[in-house]
Amino acid sequence: MSDDVFSQFKEHSVAEFFRKNKQMLGFSGKVRSLTTIVHELVTNSLDAAEEGRILPNITVELTEVDKDEGRYIVRVEDNGTGIPEHLIGKALGMMLAGTKFHRYVQQRGQQGIGAAGVTMYAQLTTGKPVKVVSGYKGTKIKCEVSIDIKTNRPIVNVIEREPTDWHGLIYEAEVKDVKYDKSSYGVYEYLKRTALANPHAEIVFIDPSGERHVFPRSVEEIPPKPKPVKPHPLGVTTSDLIDFAHYSKEPTLGSFLRNTFSRLSQKKLEEIKEQLPDINFRMKPRELTWEQADRLVNVFKKIKWISPSADGIYPIGAEQIKKSIYNILNPEFCEVVERSPKVYKGGVPFIVEVGLAYGGDAGKKIGNSRVSDVMRFANRAPLLFDAGGCAITESAKSIDWKRYGIQRFDEAPITLIVNVSSVHIPYTGAGKQALASEQEIVDEIRNAIMEAARKLQVHIRGKVRERERATKIKSVLRYVKQLTADLTELAEFPDREFLNNQLITLVETKYGKRRPNTENEMNGTEKSGTEKNAGDIPSGEGAKS
Amino acid sequence: MSDDVFSQFKEHSVAEFFRKNKQMLGFSGKVRSLTTIVHELVTNSLDAAEEGRILPNITVELTEVDKDEGRYIVRVEDNGTGIPEHLIGKALGMMLAGTKFHRYVQQRGQQGIGAAGVTMYAQLTTGKPVKVVSGYKGTKIKCEVSIDIKTNRPIVNVIEREPTDWHGLIYEAEVKDVKYDKSSYGVYEYLKRTALANPHAEIVFIDPSGERHVFPRSVEEIPPKPKPVKPHPLGVTTSDLIDFAHYSKEPTLGSFLRNTFSRLSQKKLEEIKEQLPDINFRMKPRELTWEQADRLVNVFKKIKWISPSADGIYPIGAEQIKKSIYNILNPEFCEVVERSPKVYKGGVPFIVEVGLAYGGDAGKKIGNSRVSDVMRFANRAPLLFDAGGCAITESAKSIDWKRYGIQRFDEAPITLIVNVSSVHIPYTGAGKQALASEQEIVDEIRNAIMEAARKLQVHIRGKVRERERATKIKSVLRYVKQLTADLTELAEFPDREFLNNQLITLVETKYGKRRPNTENEMNGTEKSGTEKNAGDIPSGEGAKS
Repeated sequence: MSDDVFSQFKEHSVAEFFRKNKQMLGFSGKVRSLTTIVHELVTNSLDAAEEGRILPNITVELTEVDKDEGRYIVRVEDNGTGIPEHLIGKALGMMLAGTKFHRYVQQRGQQGIGAAGVTMYAQLTTGKPVKVVSGYKGTKIKCEVSIDIKTNRPIVNVIEREPTDWHGLIYEAEVKDVKYDKSSYGVYEYLKRTALANPHAEIVFIDPSGERHVFPRSVEEIPPKPKPVKPHPLGVTTSDLIDFAHYSKEPTLGSFLRNTFSRLSQKKLEEIKEQLPDINFRMKPRELTWEQADRLVNVFKKIKWISPSADGIYPIGAEQIKKSIYNILNPEFCEVVERSPKVYKGGVPFIVEVGLAYGGDAGKKIGNSRVSDVMRFANRAPLLFDAGGCAITESAKSIDWKRYGIQRFDEAPITLIVNVSSVHIPYTGAGKQALASEQEIVDEIRNAIMEAARKLQVHIRGKVRERERATKIKSVLRYVKQLTADLTELAEFPDREFLNNQLITLVETKYGKRRPNTENEMNGTEKSGTEKNAGDIPSGEGAKS
Repeated sequence: MSDDVFSQFKEHSVAEFFRKNKQMLGFSGKVRSLTTIVHELVTNSLDAAEEGRILPNITVELTEVDKDEGRYIVRVEDNGTGIPEHLIGKALGMMLAGTKFHRYVQQRGQQGIGAAGVTMYAQLTTGKPVKVVSGYKGTKIKCEVSIDIKTNRPIVNVIEREPTDWHGLIYEAEVKDVKYDKSSYGVYEYLKRTALANPHAEIVFIDPSGERHVFPRSVEEIPPKPKPVKPHPLGVTTSDLIDFAHYSKEPTLGSFLRNTFSRLSQKKLEEIKEQLPDINFRMKPRELTWEQADRLVNVFKKIKWISPSADGIYPIGAEQIKKSIYNILNPEFCEVVERSPKVYKGGVPFIVEVGLAYGGDAGKKIGNSRVSDVMRFANRAPLLFDAGGCAITESAKSIDWKRYGIQRFDEAPITLIVNVSSVHIPYTGAGKQALASEQEIVDEIRNAIMEAARKLQVHIRGKVRERERATKIKSVLRYVKQLTADLTELAEFPDREFLNNQLITLVETKYGKRRPNTENEMNGTEKSGTEKNAGDIPSGEGAKS
């Protein structure tokens, strides 16, 4: 009997696995599936441009073929490096193949599944291979790509080869069971947020109605090329160390350690040696045993290290975030916090940036009111889904907002922009839409938000004082007119107008002028002077000049 | 320049992928990692017992090796079929290999990753292979198993082979970075819930302090052996159909359709043929084109089908759930709803069961108050994590509980047990802790909960009426004593006691007796007579007899 079941024992390819578990790649729900497709392709385009030191121009075009079937053609064109012919198949028609998986470098894509997942989705829903045009080093290749799912091997059918000056990639897939809409989960919102976090890119979106939306480039500077960085000793596990040592070509354990890890100077090596006198640092790295590696890792944890270099990490930058916020949200108050690099899991460096916008168009409009909005980014790629299970949302909600003058965060006119940059983002799933709650990342996001929120608090307090002052002025001014009339009559003073103005100036100077300490507090919030709700009377500006 | 990056193009094994994305398998956080390990192993044990028609005895033992390091030995022993020697490696040391992935049958495990994931986790954290003893068909094999991660191939080191009468499997892994605690995410809670949903299993848990917890078997009946079922025509996609046809050995398209799908009778085949007169149903299945398959699938969607057979699906059963609920929660009210089989994604059958317990020990104790508790199960395996992103939680929260007399669901003393059974559970991730929000499943869970909630409403209404009646009786009875005194005096009636009793009976008959229509409504809620909060006076029971 039990033979039965074992006779059915089989091995499966990773493509079969993801075919059966498409939702793990983000293919669940019609709107989300379409956004996932655009996300994977645009992500690759941005990475390719950065890699090739090119200011990216990306055009995304959606063509509706059959609305009832949810059948669309998705076409993404970029001006990146293109892909050499021999790698087109593996890059776009094979899972777990690529340049990103094993390199310790910050890129948006990092799993080697993305584009191949889209190719599979097209194939599974419409039976059609995807059409690819690659302009790489003077040759233009036109071909069709699909996946042999049983074996996870690419099938490439080259249609045309010709010389070209053009470089870049055009990827066109016909897919079914998707839906285009303008919701906050849709392609338009995705591209808007991508533009927000990538001001160096020009993104053009041609929607299914044929309308052209241009998100123009606002910075002419190419971001630095992401470079692979050496791992930090604090981020290494025993298993990693054994692995590195096993594949190392260094002659000795000592030189292996020096050259494999960042911040591991000769001085640090001596410190390590001192702690482990019985380990022979002249042995070949591959002779390292688990037990020795374990002890090395334990010593790593006791030594004081310089923080890992953030060389490989490129955040958006405070200036850029501020620019984007004022462009898009026109808020009453804005504060951007860029934290210094930190480390999670011991040695993976990451940087958190937070932009906090308050008032104006900040927050999400729901009906007639505004509610708070948390825009999440990882390595500059927007995360639209799975907000509930994401460390960013969790961190934002865990803040005691009342301490900062916000009674209910959910109902406040606040937009929080949080971008986490790292050479390895700890996603909770292959769909790459939520960050796992690594304690260090949560702490850092919270710290950044609280830093911004403290400024917001000062601003709000200022607003409250301002309003109180305005109310006082208003009540005192009520008497001015009467007083002027009485005084002119009593004193037989002829220039009623003059007296009136003098009195108003007196009152405004008394109540309207900001106290010096307040002035200082307010410096960080330049826009607070133009606030809209500060009272009925122009809040003492006259007295300020 | 760009050559650089393409020269680093590599292919990776699925084991490397999951090594880097351990969190996708549930290895994130120390407590969760340990629960994941136990979950994967116990799940396999239960499946193996069912497959082999054996009443499962499962012993889980946790031994603490080093608390600071979070180092434990996890040992799971079962009395299942064991594994034949030539498959031990692949079953326990290779990802995406197994008997479950491709068969269309209800089992707890379904991805062929579980145990291999545990083996990898042990290896990555302690560098040690796992120890395995398998008793299969008269031979006992003792061996050590690990994974070659770069290639996803198993490494098996056989230590001993000997004849035996025993059958079963012992799997022992030494792991690090885990934590044992008694929280609702821990191993104890996991096993308790497993026992609740698997009353035919005896589960023994020896915790790190050496304490032995026995969850005894409460049903002596072996659940039916899960059998593979044919797919229903409504569940098939064009891509599936092409795939099935491609691998079919049937001589004609017609016989292929008849023999591949359930509910596809000769009569139905004729109906299909009529709709597609230009397709030759005598052609070889492998000649089927995408376009033809597409049209076939569209015709499938138009035909009226008998619902898919639920033959392959075995829910826990209403009786069992009720038994478990009274055993564990001792509630004031309990209602179990077992819905008839339904279909999602067109053709995947599933069954939803809901148990609703109210009052007593129902709900979760937090401090001194009780809050509602949703216990989620998929194919009888408890889901402890990712509650937020799960279709079950979502469904429960989306109910308008006020309509059922519950002001705030979150704060009500309610335990909801929801079990979804299917040959393919749509998990949101490989960690298998949350169900994707397939509309049909959400609807069905909601319907089941509402069905139970309507009964709860009647119960609660009854309670309110009961309380009102009790209050009335109380106020009228206040006068009885005085009236008795007055009457006996006025009428010079000697038996004061008798008169008093007669009057009380009169009052209780008037107010205390249940009205006939109420009686009917209350039938479903047998326990309502014993409620504790029904008022100070025994609510008219005397009058009922």
